[in-house]
Formats: sequence, structure tokens, C-alpha cells
Amino acid sequence: MKQTSEPQADIAVVGLAVMGQNLILNMNDHGFTVVAFNRTVSKVDDFLSGEAKGTNVIGAHSIEDMVAALKHPRRVMLMVKAGDPVDQMIEHILPHLETGDIIIDGGNSLFTDTMRRMEYVESKGLLYVGTGVSGGEDGARHGPSIMPGGSPAAWPYIKDIFQGIAAKVDDGTPCCDWVGQGGAGHYVKMVHNGIEYGDMQLIGEAYQLMEAYLGLEADDIASVFSGWNKGELDSFLVQITADILAFKDIDGKPLVDKILDTAGQKGTGKWTVISSAELGQPVSLISEAVYARCISALKEQRIAAAKVLAGPANRPKPDNPEVFIGHLRQALYASKIASYAQGYMLLHAAAEEYGWDLDYGRVAQMWRGGCIIRSRFLGNITDAFDSNPELTNLLLDPFFAKAVEDGQDSWRTVVSTAVQAGVPAPAMGSALAFYDAYRSDRLPANLLQAQRDYFGAHTYERVDKARGEFFHTDWTGHGGKTSSTSYNA
Amino acid sequence: MKQTSEPQADIAVVGLAVMGQNLILNMNDHGFTVVAFNRTVSKVDDFLSGEAKGTNVIGAHSIEDMVAALKHPRRVMLMVKAGDPVDQMIEHILPHLETGDIIIDGGNSLFTDTMRRMEYVESKGLLYVGTGVSGGEDGARHGPSIMPGGSPAAWPYIKDIFQGIAAKVDDGTPCCDWVGQGGAGHYVKMVHNGIEYGDMQLIGEAYQLMEAYLGLEADDIASVFSGWNKGELDSFLVQITADILAFKDIDGKPLVDKILDTAGQKGTGKWTVISSAELGQPVSLISEAVYARCISALKEQRIAAAKVLAGPANRPKPDNPEVFIGHLRQALYASKIASYAQGYMLLHAAAEEYGWDLDYGRVAQMWRGGCIIRSRFLGNITDAFDSNPELTNLLLDPFFAKAVEDGQDSWRTVVSTAVQAGVPAPAMGSALAFYDAYRSDRLPANLLQAQRDYFGAHTYERVDKARGEFFHTDWTGHGGKTSSTSYNA
Repeated sequence: MKQTSEPQADIAVVGLAVMGQNLILNMNDHGFTVVAFNRTVSKVDDFLSGEAKGTNVIGAHSIEDMVAALKHPRRVMLMVKAGDPVDQMIEHILPHLETGDIIIDGGNSLFTDTMRRMEYVESKGLLYVGTGVSGGEDGARHGPSIMPGGSPAAWPYIKDIFQGIAAKVDDGTPCCDWVGQGGAGHYVKMVHNGIEYGDMQLIGEAYQLMEAYLGLEADDIASVFSGWNKGELDSFLVQITADILAFKDIDGKPLVDKILDTAGQKGTGKWTVISSAELGQPVSLISEAVYARCISALKEQRIAAAKVLAGPANRPKPDNPEVFIGHLRQALYASKIASYAQGYMLLHAAAEEYGWDLDYGRVAQMWRGGCIIRSRFLGNITDAFDSNPELTNLLLDPFFAKAVEDGQDSWRTVVSTAVQAGVPAPAMGSALAFYDAYRSDRLPANLLQAQRDYFGAHTYERVDKARGEFFHTDWTGHGGKTSSTSYNA
Repeated sequence: MKQTSEPQADIAVVGLAVMGQNLILNMNDHGFTVVAFNRTVSKVDDFLSGEAKGTNVIGAHSIEDMVAALKHPRRVMLMVKAGDPVDQMIEHILPHLETGDIIIDGGNSLFTDTMRRMEYVESKGLLYVGTGVSGGEDGARHGPSIMPGGSPAAWPYIKDIFQGIAAKVDDGTPCCDWVGQGGAGHYVKMVHNGIEYGDMQLIGEAYQLMEAYLGLEADDIASVFSGWNKGELDSFLVQITADILAFKDIDGKPLVDKILDTAGQKGTGKWTVISSAELGQPVSLISEAVYARCISALKEQRIAAAKVLAGPANRPKPDNPEVFIGHLRQALYASKIASYAQGYMLLHAAAEEYGWDLDYGRVAQMWRGGCIIRSRFLGNITDAFDSNPELTNLLLDPFFAKAVEDGQDSWRTVVSTAVQAGVPAPAMGSALAFYDAYRSDRLPANLLQAQRDYFGAHTYERVDKARGEFFHTDWTGHGGKTSSTSYNA
């Protein structure tokens, strides 16, 4: 271990799990001197003599050592497990820091925890940053998407490091920019992960339709995804799907067919659903993706149910698989547009609720490279907000409106085929129902308001009266017993 | 006002809004002496000289008066707005009560608040009950569904009153029984309300399909619902829907057509979605119902979107409206079965998480009368649990499995028709996708696990190995680089 009397390190990273190690190596590659610390100190030595051998990374065996090695203002980035460990580490570190020093949490923390921690750390005279970091191990090592928020005064002190190590889009713009005050960075990361759940579910539905409806083998499906990756669906997740489907087990057969079909859900996907309910935003596709994981986890129940619950007696047969695959591509694309439209509705509502001044085009640009949902598509979203920063809904952008219009016949064909064939396509179906509801100037909520007024005297508004005037009807009478009331229902 | 020196009242009710007043009158009808109190004291006098005139109801002008009028152990039921007012009223009342006295919260409180309050009130030596009360004003007056939970020792002291005033099913069984410890009563009420959201959304979708796809008028649709109410869909909500659709405004035209199509969502529907995410239960139909209300609220955006976003170029034309209406009835019924199956999955998970010993058949019986979702259908659910108390999922009960099997062709026809016609049917569609996923012994989560292992080294299990053995693959290599690992991903 290198000892030093003069502070020379640019930043400390606490927590040497895979993400922490890779971020450190990435920072080192970009000319920053990093001091590495871990509560289990042997990990520091292992790292210094292993992956970090021959680098400028400094090892610290104690918080005191770590702090002593840091230039002012000190920057300490936590890469520990989200939840209590973050609070505990803040308590351990705080006594060793001074006014103006900066604590950065780079884990997947819940945004309300980040709000609370920022307030607490600022009350001690320090600055706090909660930042999303996406891209998995590979991203962390070679260029992640980084979404920092928190104390605005901290940004000038971390900008060079974070933008330096972040992924870059084609024109060199880093996939990192200041997101906003408080929990904004972790919120945007949460929505990113929710959207990731949705993207993965859509790909899964397309895969299942090709396998269970068209009867294709993994290799054939790999070719389809490879082809899709050359067009508007060009994205990291579509590309790795092609890789995965083509991957052979040691016996030469597709490995994917041997993997158990159960997935967990927790953390950020769940939080996105909860936030959508709290803010009243219809993020139905992500919810369906989360629920699909829940159902996948019920493997034993599904095996039992498969023996009891019949599917459709007459499953439709595909006329022409090539044509259906074309429909599928369009359905996936249109569903994806609807999903991002929903995700952006949630971002808008959160920005309003929590007072963040989000730059929606920049958010898409941060996701454009480095992270799991990186795709060509995100460039189109940035373009949409560049041409109209006041855009209410992505579906109303001319590029996306036309894309959905061009694809909607295929979208409808795929969803109705899935329904008739008994193959679940909850995300595609939910996205289409959302599209049809969003473009309806009349929905059946008039009946619903009447029901609520009938059984609970909740009152209703009328299409022929001004908004804000409420009416109540004595429905069990025989007509005419309608009265106006001005109370707020 | 009647004054008394000897305590003679059976129970006090605090809060004289419509639900509180009606519960008091109901209790009075059943021979219980009730003392009525309200923080705005003039309401007490208004009530005593108005609706309560000629009854045995006692008015109290202060908490002291109220408490002095009560027999031991004192029973004080709060019918105040959920949230802080409940905590405040508990604080006001506590100093006047003694060990063994009982505080009952009859509002729509969040179950976790009820857990917290029970612990607090018990720490003071008193007993606490949080109870759901459903049925609107009319139910409260003539027989609500009552779902009490909390301190088990309180039940013997409130049983006679609550079962006395509750609705009764045909054989005289009251729609009230002890639900369980802590927040169990309010939780069951929350799920009831979530299911109510779902039932109302399903009716709304059927209504919109008849109006927007079949082109029927309100009167015709009223007749359809009237007819449905004679069969397996017999329920309060279907009945009032028929009433509402037949109701004429003063100009003789259907009033429903003049009601604004925007609905709010808050409280219990939202909480059901949040709880489903927290407990990992796929309550997709209720979520879609909550989201549908959110979309309905975006009236201005929808009007704008309707001008920009096209529907399907070639909408299918109905061959035979009568036949389609038959399909609709089956789709509504099958969707409803799926929705209750989801609701019961949530109840099961909550019982496990919070340690409640729920009697599922009795829960359905409590909902069988008095409340908003009361229906013939709930009798079938009680039957299902009577014949198999260990039933894992309602869909696996022979009666319901057959009902869905009989209805599934119609269900698929309706959902695919809605999709092709551009009429949103998110709840019916989501329920069908859930059914198809639940009965799938193979879902595409194998691909999802491979993706997570590819970008995050999250590992996966294999169909040809024991559960609990985890594997990681180096996917970017060229095959064969699979390693087994035992860490918990």
C-alpha cells in the first residue's frame, strides 16, 4: 500500500464490490487519483494487489487514512448496498469531514432516502449528492450513465470526474449531467430502471410469441433480434438478446432453453410502480412488467395451473411467419414509445411534485449511452424535446405520433393474435389500451362518476356546465331530482 | 338534550358527518343507546333536533360529557376523516379513558396507521379496533358490511353491536366478523375498495364497448345491464348501473350522457396498488382500474390527443350486436373472476407478511351484503373456500375454473375486438393476460434471467438442476464459459 503525507487523492470510493472496483479503475484510467476503502479491510489489500495492481489507486485501511489522503473539498463516494448501510456509513464518515466536503451515494437508493440524507448532511455543513449509476459492471468500468442530483453546490466539484468517466454519445457529449435538487438523480435512475423492466418485458413477449405461437427455435429468434438491432429498435437490450439466444451450452444446444423461467422483482421497479400510484400517473406498462416477474416467480403454481386451466380451443395458426415477425417489430416499437411516454409522464409529475427543474431532453441524452436501456430511440426523444421543450407527452411529438400511426395496425394484429392464441402479452396489450384511452376525448368515467354519486353522494361535473361546479342527483328517485352543490367532493 | 347521571350509553360515536349519523341511527334502531359527539358542537344539537329527534340518542357537548355517559368498558367509535384527525382525536380522548376501554376507528384508515395506533393505544392499557365500514350512506343506515380488526380482546365487547347493525345474508349470517389482529380489518377493507375500483372499471369497459363499438344508446345499455343483473353478474354495481343509464335529466334525455368523464383516484385504490407492489402480487386489474381513472382525469390532454392520434383505419363492424353482448357478459364475468383471484392472492400474501389468520370464506361472506361490491358471486367464493379451505388460487376452484373455461372464447373475442376497434379495455385485457400467464408452465423469464446475468452477473437457475443452485455465464465469450456459484443473487 502506498502511504502519503500530502493529500493527493481526488476522490475516495467506499465499498469494493464489483461496481465500486470498476468505477475506481475507470476513474484511474481518466487520470484521477482514487483512494479505495472497504469496511472489510482485507478487500482493500486484495484489490490493490489484484485488479488495481500497477494503477495509481491508493488503499486506505481506515476512514482516517482515507480522509487524510483526500484533497479539499473532500469527495467521498459510497458504493455500498442501498438502505441502512448508506446511513451507517454516513455516520462513520461524517465526524472525519469538514464544512464543504462532499458525500456522494452511488447506489440504487430510494429517492426519498436521498432527500432525507441530503437535508441531514447539509445540516452538518457538508454537501450531499445522490447519483444513479447505470451500465452494470461493464458500464462502470468503461463508461456508465451517471445521473447526479442533490446539493447543487457540489456539482462543480464532481463534474470533471463524473463527466470524464461517463459514457459519451457520438458527438462526445457525456452521458452525465446535473439532474436536479434533492432526490432528482436517484428518481431519474429509478424511472430508468422501471423503463428497463418494461423494455425487457416487451422483448420477452416478442420472444414468447415467436417461440410459442410461431414455433421458432432459439437460433431463428436470435436472427430476428439481430435483424431488428439494425433498425429503429437498435439498442443494448435487443443486441444482448440476440447474443443470448445464439449462445450454446456445452452440449451445443441453446443455453437459454435450460434457464429456469422465474425472475425476482424488488427495489427500483417496485418503487416506480409505487411512485406512479402516489403521483397518479398511468405507468401501466412498467406495472405489467413488474407483475409479470411476480407471476414468473410462482413456478410451482403455474405448473399446477397449466394442468387445470385450458387455453383457447382453436388457436389461430400463423399464415406467414415472416409477415407476423414484421408486425411484431412494429408492435414492440409502438409499445416502447407508449412506455417511454408513460415514463416521461411520471418524470413530469415528479418534477412538479418535488420542485425539480428537469431537462427532459438531457435526461434522454444521459440514457443514450452507457446504461442498460441505451438505444438509438433515446436520440429521437432528445430530438423531440429539442424541437419542443414544452412537449406535454411524447405521443404528441410528430415523429413519435407518426411512428405509432404507421405501426398501429401491426400492433393491433399482434395483441389480438396473442389474445386469441392464449400467449400472454400484458405489456404490449396494456400499452395499446393506454394509447387508445389517451387518444379518447370521451371515456366511460361519466358512468363511474354517476356510480360514485349514486352510492356515496360524491357529486359530479357536467359537460354542459363549467368545471368546478358539482352536482348531486337522487338516483333512486324517478328523475329530475338533481341539485347543484358547491362543496369540494 | 337528555342529561343523565348514571352511565347508560352502550357506545359513543365521534364525528357526525353522514356516515357517523347513519351508523348512530342504525345502532339506535337495534336497541343500542348511543352518545353522539362532534368537535363542532353545534352539529350535535342539529343532529339531536333533526335526524335523531325522537330516538334514544344522547348528545354530548364535550368529551367529558361523552365519557361520563358511557357504560364500562367504554366503547368510543371515531367516524372522522382518515389521517391526522384520527391521531388528534385519539390524543383528545385518551386522557379521559381507563384501562380496558376501547377506541374504534371506523374510517378508511391506512392499515399501517392502524397497526401503529393499536400499538400506541395498547401501550396505554386500552384496546384498539380499526374497522372497515362499507356500503355508503345507505349501508351505514340500514346495514353495512363491517370488517373489524385490532386488539382481539376487544371483539367480545363490540360483537353484539357490530353484528347487530351489519347487513345479513339470506340465512341471517351477519356481514361482520372478526378479521384479525392489528391492521387486518382495514387491510381487508382496502382490498375491498381496490376490487370495487376493478368492478367499476369492468362495467365501464362493457358500457364503452356497447356505446362506442355497438353504437347503442343509454336506454338500450340500461336494458342489457338489467338483464345481466338476473344472472351470474347479479350485484349492486350492475343494478345501479342499469338505474343510472335509465335515469333521465329534466329534458328527458339520459343524464349519464351529460356527466363529465373525469374521475379521481386516491386513498384505498392507490394503497392497494402500492401494497401489491410491496408484496409482489400481480394485482394487475386493479392497477389498470386506478390508472384508467388517472387517464380520465387528463381531459384536456385527451381532447388534444384525440385530434392528433388516429385510431385504426378499418374498425371492425359488429355482425350481430346480440351475439357480441353475450360475449361481453362472459368477458365481464371471466375478468371479474380473475380480478378476485388477484385480490385474494394479495390477501394471502398480506396474511403471511403480517401474521394474520384470515378466514377467506368469511371475508367473502362479509362482502356478500351491505357493501358496494355485494353480489351473488361472493357466495360462490365462500362456497369455494368452504369446500377447500386450503385453496391456493380462486382460478383453481372447480366452479371458477369451469366458468372461465366456458367464457374464455367470448373473453378473447371481446378483448381482441376492442383492440381492433380502438376501444380501450385495459382491465379486461390485463385480466386475460394474467390468466394466460398464470396457466403457463413456461414464461419468457428464462430470457430475462439470462439478460440480467449478461449485464449484471445476477446469475440464474437451470431447469435441469436443483432449485437454489445458481449459475453465471460469460455471455460475451463464445460458449461453454458457464460456472456454478452458490452466492445468493
